[in-house]
Amino acid sequence: MKIVVVGSGNVATHFARAFYASGNDIAQVYSRNITHAQVLASQLDAQAIDSFADLADDAHLYLLAIPDDALYEVVTQISPKQGIVVHTSGSVPMDVLKPLSAKIGVVYSPQTFVKSLEMNYSELPFCLEASDGEVLERLKNLVLPVSEKIYEINSDQRRKLHLAAVFVNNFGNALNAMAQDITMLNDIPFEILHPIIAVTAEKASHGDLWLLQTGPAVRGDEKTISNHKKLLANDSDLLELYSLITSIIQKKCQ
Amino acid sequence: MKIVVVGSGNVATHFARAFYASGNDIAQVYSRNITHAQVLASQLDAQAIDSFADLADDAHLYLLAIPDDALYEVVTQISPKQGIVVHTSGSVPMDVLKPLSAKIGVVYSPQTFVKSLEMNYSELPFCLEASDGEVLERLKNLVLPVSEKIYEINSDQRRKLHLAAVFVNNFGNALNAMAQDITMLNDIPFEILHPIIAVTAEKASHGDLWLLQTGPAVRGDEKTISNHKKLLANDSDLLELYSLITSIIQKKCQ
Repeated sequence: MKIVVVGSGNVATHFARAFYASGNDIAQVYSRNITHAQVLASQLDAQAIDSFADLADDAHLYLLAIPDDALYEVVTQISPKQGIVVHTSGSVPMDVLKPLSAKIGVVYSPQTFVKSLEMNYSELPFCLEASDGEVLERLKNLVLPVSEKIYEINSDQRRKLHLAAVFVNNFGNALNAMAQDITMLNDIPFEILHPIIAVTAEKASHGDLWLLQTGPAVRGDEKTISNHKKLLANDSDLLELYSLITSIIQKKCQ
Repeated sequence: MKIVVVGSGNVATHFARAFYASGNDIAQVYSRNITHAQVLASQLDAQAIDSFADLADDAHLYLLAIPDDALYEVVTQISPKQGIVVHTSGSVPMDVLKPLSAKIGVVYSPQTFVKSLEMNYSELPFCLEASDGEVLERLKNLVLPVSEKIYEINSDQRRKLHLAAVFVNNFGNALNAMAQDITMLNDIPFEILHPIIAVTAEKASHGDLWLLQTGPAVRGDEKTISNHKKLLANDSDLLELYSLITSIIQKKCQ
């Protein structure tokens, strides 16, 4: 496929590399900042551009890998295309792309991408949505050489999947950070908890997670809960969080 | 070392197996339920007992691996010993063991133990506390052939470490379970999120976790936050949790 990539951030970089490595022609990389476009384009034998007027008209696929706010804006700035136009956002409905093409879709991967870190793309889940069956087939054929983890997810499901990803990733990291604060304040090496964090993640693939819940909340160990609340008495946010999650666990595991 | 194990649950089973495999003599396994004692004792060439009157008097180490409530009770039921007496609890101070021996200590590992699952003990962190330097040396010598991850952690630190472990493990699992609920309610395979859960855990060893925080909260992406809250409007607990963690992230990452 002849592909034009709009964006030069973390998602644009990894998607472009993955599709280039699997044999596609990355014709152009667009960024508002031409230097950013050049950095990515040079890795992919592509042309760097910083004006939508220079977008090729004959690409098979236009991949808009840009932040949500920018996406809504860019849709009003690009002229309609014959090729397929897709975005990569978890939260934005596919239909915002309608002004750009009759053939639209979404290629969303719920993962954290960091430009500077290499990734094993074969482990990446790809959530696809398409305006029709033919577009869906073309997107599947694009993704399959990269990863076999392909899911058909519509716009409504995708925003809920994105919400769930915020719980496990953003909120999960925040919980780990709070635990790190607790250990550091008490001269305890945080690395002591690395193994239990790894096991907690492994457990996530073992079925109904409420059935695997352990700890004072699910045991109804009120003495430990009360002692933990005393330890958090000086931090009203953490105390409130402890009480709230404990109460949710107790309701869910009743 | 000649060791007597009091308890036959998850921690007792794994600690006894680990110390047996590293060449110690497990002389006895005590449980209130003689069948439970026998199941474990039979794996360790040990004697199963169900009465404290039958406890050997000449063991080098008495390992009390029982729930916190039981621990406070058992301390009043066992006669004083010449050997070292240790418990394995995260929350109970070492000094509750004082009535039992002049040589006391704690061997605590912040990990989830399941009897039926084999474990790689060399990855286990062991947090040690001892009444004096000689006891500490003996406990280090006991643990070192099992794992080199040995930490000296006093009773006050240990209860805070236990609290931190509740955040990463019990609360971490609960967050994953909530995400699982969100996916299941929307016919989304939860396995799509397994890779990002794994990456979230890997990130925990990469330094200051607040600096690695990603997502709408730290980006100040109020549009996405507002959309997520709308999606949670029917679940007041999850809505409250979303708002609270978002607010904590924003304060911490300011």
